[in-house]
Amino acid sequence: MLGRSARQIRSMLRARSSVSLSTGQDVELTSQRYPDLRRKPFGQVGPSEIARFQAILDSNRVITDPTELDGYNTDWMRISRGQGQVVLKPKTTAEVSQILRYCSEQNLAVCPQGGNTGLVGGSIPIGGNVSTNAGGLRLLRYGSLQGSILGLEVVLPNGEILDCLSQLKKDNTGYHLKHLFIGSEGTLGFVTKVAIQCPPRPKAVNVAFLGMTSFESVLRTFKEARSNLGEILSSCEFIDAEAMKCVTGNLELTCPIDPQAFYMLIETSGSRSNHDEEKLTEFLEALMSDGTVVDGTVASSEAQIQKIWPLRERLAEALLRDGYCYKYDISLPLDVFYDSVIAMKERLGSRVIRCIGYGHVGDGNMHLNITTKEYDDQVMQLIEPFLYEWTSHHKGSISAEHGLGFKKRNFMHFSKSPSAIKAMKQIKAVFDPQGIMNPYKVLPDNE
Amino acid sequence: MLGRSARQIRSMLRARSSVSLSTGQDVELTSQRYPDLRRKPFGQVGPSEIARFQAILDSNRVITDPTELDGYNTDWMRISRGQGQVVLKPKTTAEVSQILRYCSEQNLAVCPQGGNTGLVGGSIPIGGNVSTNAGGLRLLRYGSLQGSILGLEVVLPNGEILDCLSQLKKDNTGYHLKHLFIGSEGTLGFVTKVAIQCPPRPKAVNVAFLGMTSFESVLRTFKEARSNLGEILSSCEFIDAEAMKCVTGNLELTCPIDPQAFYMLIETSGSRSNHDEEKLTEFLEALMSDGTVVDGTVASSEAQIQKIWPLRERLAEALLRDGYCYKYDISLPLDVFYDSVIAMKERLGSRVIRCIGYGHVGDGNMHLNITTKEYDDQVMQLIEPFLYEWTSHHKGSISAEHGLGFKKRNFMHFSKSPSAIKAMKQIKAVFDPQGIMNPYKVLPDNE
Repeated sequence: MLGRSARQIRSMLRARSSVSLSTGQDVELTSQRYPDLRRKPFGQVGPSEIARFQAILDSNRVITDPTELDGYNTDWMRISRGQGQVVLKPKTTAEVSQILRYCSEQNLAVCPQGGNTGLVGGSIPIGGNVSTNAGGLRLLRYGSLQGSILGLEVVLPNGEILDCLSQLKKDNTGYHLKHLFIGSEGTLGFVTKVAIQCPPRPKAVNVAFLGMTSFESVLRTFKEARSNLGEILSSCEFIDAEAMKCVTGNLELTCPIDPQAFYMLIETSGSRSNHDEEKLTEFLEALMSDGTVVDGTVASSEAQIQKIWPLRERLAEALLRDGYCYKYDISLPLDVFYDSVIAMKERLGSRVIRCIGYGHVGDGNMHLNITTKEYDDQVMQLIEPFLYEWTSHHKGSISAEHGLGFKKRNFMHFSKSPSAIKAMKQIKAVFDPQGIMNPYKVLPDNE
Repeated sequence: MLGRSARQIRSMLRARSSVSLSTGQDVELTSQRYPDLRRKPFGQVGPSEIARFQAILDSNRVITDPTELDGYNTDWMRISRGQGQVVLKPKTTAEVSQILRYCSEQNLAVCPQGGNTGLVGGSIPIGGNVSTNAGGLRLLRYGSLQGSILGLEVVLPNGEILDCLSQLKKDNTGYHLKHLFIGSEGTLGFVTKVAIQCPPRPKAVNVAFLGMTSFESVLRTFKEARSNLGEILSSCEFIDAEAMKCVTGNLELTCPIDPQAFYMLIETSGSRSNHDEEKLTEFLEALMSDGTVVDGTVASSEAQIQKIWPLRERLAEALLRDGYCYKYDISLPLDVFYDSVIAMKERLGSRVIRCIGYGHVGDGNMHLNITTKEYDDQVMQLIEPFLYEWTSHHKGSISAEHGLGFKKRNFMHFSKSPSAIKAMKQIKAVFDPQGIMNPYKVLPDNE
């Protein structure tokens, strides 16, 4: 059984080492929280395997010290905890290739790990923006990674180096293989090089922080922003009242306007500050004069802007201060966008500390979060699969950007057709016939 | 042998019928121009197959009349000519599914055809923007189809309907299968439905048409446009002097400025006309005062704009008036961008009518075209593989947007690694194990 073996089989590959190595021993083992998950028949890591890894890498890039392993085995939310026995830190494509060829020969399972900041249990023990394809705060302006990644180099599970490292904006010579790896959460291969198209840095940035009394006003503000700010609109975020209470209360941040039912952060990025300010000012005057926006402030200097963004950016961190956080990241058509939060609030009532909604309203992407003091299985049973069914019923996606990882893999059918799931399993079999690459993630378990 | 059988095996599926059905009997058969191509062991279309097609579709959507077939068997450039014996015009996904299931059972090869406007012999007898992934005139602003297509429905070669028809901007639930079909030129399946994200229609459009004496000035103008027009720049095209002679001479169009070595068309699209005009005017004043731009005109009204765009848009049509056109569509780093045209001019000398360069300089995409009165195999031998080798040497792509189709399939290795070609063949085997879908296209012939 996964997690019961003293010599746990997953070796972890880390391309970056920026994560803090705090101890994770107070976090429940994922294998204990999910006791029904059967370990697949992979090989085991023992002294001869360690010796081979040390022959490929310097000894100081083969980590087996249990205390040091803790940081890699536990995610930053302190919700998932694995039992990898060795962490490998390759520096070159050739090293990754040698490691994977050996793991493939020995049938050793591998978990690629980047910054270990995944939110769906995919990185214990997925890594990197490319593998997760998270959209972030400015997808609205710059599009998804699928549109801006020019090329990739990937090491396949058998050690073969797949060179798709085009650096051209346009290249229609055959199938666009790179897209299979973008968002595959480390289950098809290990991304070793990325060519990405960078937009020019904007010369002028303005941020407006606005308050409104209804979600209808949020939607109207977005529509007007899209129409009147057009090409300079670079972010359109919303935060509900309870989310604002969370981030101000738990992190001692200050809201720059009076309390409202909803808040919006609207950012413009352009090439001429006087043009941008004129557009933004006229846009705000129109919305305030008709009552859509009831309060607001505009920041143009870097210092002012840096006081506003944390109210949105640090919400994930603020939620963890409540204790345990049930994280959902769903795409929904805008006409039912906030209904998802209302439905969950009604269902959960006083069993939870809070149920909040915030996120990328400009992309139709809701971050719905629920907190309790400690993990509560009854609360979990009330949330899942109810929220997935609700999302599927409203033609949404159960994961807009966080991926499926470990926690959501068996719910894929709520967002994907049987024909698509079948095709994904066929693709997996092409690139990873042994299934050693980040097992128990993304693809649903076989019945 | 392909093309020698009286009962040619390719049935053609047409989703659109907007193409003119001119006779193509004066165009040399592709099978005669390429006599070494061996026909694969597909089934044959005979009376019983026609009867089955008629049972699936109305009789008037099963076309077998030889004269009518000509229009579908010949491309609009009148360069490729196939020998398909039947054209099928399904209206629904279910009809496409039934047809493909039957073709799969009978091992009949199928060529999907859209508007029959492909430029690489892929549609005789591929279709549609999705399958070809052409970037067009405004990729610079709106990105590629890979970024703007939200979802697809595809009928696989065995008739199975693959539903990837998400209509959400963000959906990270599993592998992003749709990208395999975008740009696969009809070789993996038949696209039956598309969900696409449409940007808001711009409120103000301006077009500047400029002249300069050197290609260095073209590059400098592009860089300044990218920096100073930033978010409103929607197209950045260039035309060389010989291309201008071609479009004005062959189509009787008028160039609005005095003759120069190079011309550029720069389009802005924005939400406020006064802001856009101010940006554009200041940009042009700076470039004219330092001599980068030596002549120019700006159009703001729809009528003025419609007089300028044809100088660029109708170049492909103008070239055909010379006789035979050798079309190349390459991506190149900008520092060697125009060197490709200079190298070909030197190599071909007076053997050709003209060798011209124009295209999407903002995307690094050169359209290099050579014309002769009639097809000349000696000229072809001078061009290929030399130009592909030159492009590969400079780390470019041998097909930026037209695809590989029939004509360029065996040159894929100039732009793709052996590992990528191997993976593409594996993907092809997953979706089309019999190889009935648009055979002899995209993937290189097996050695």
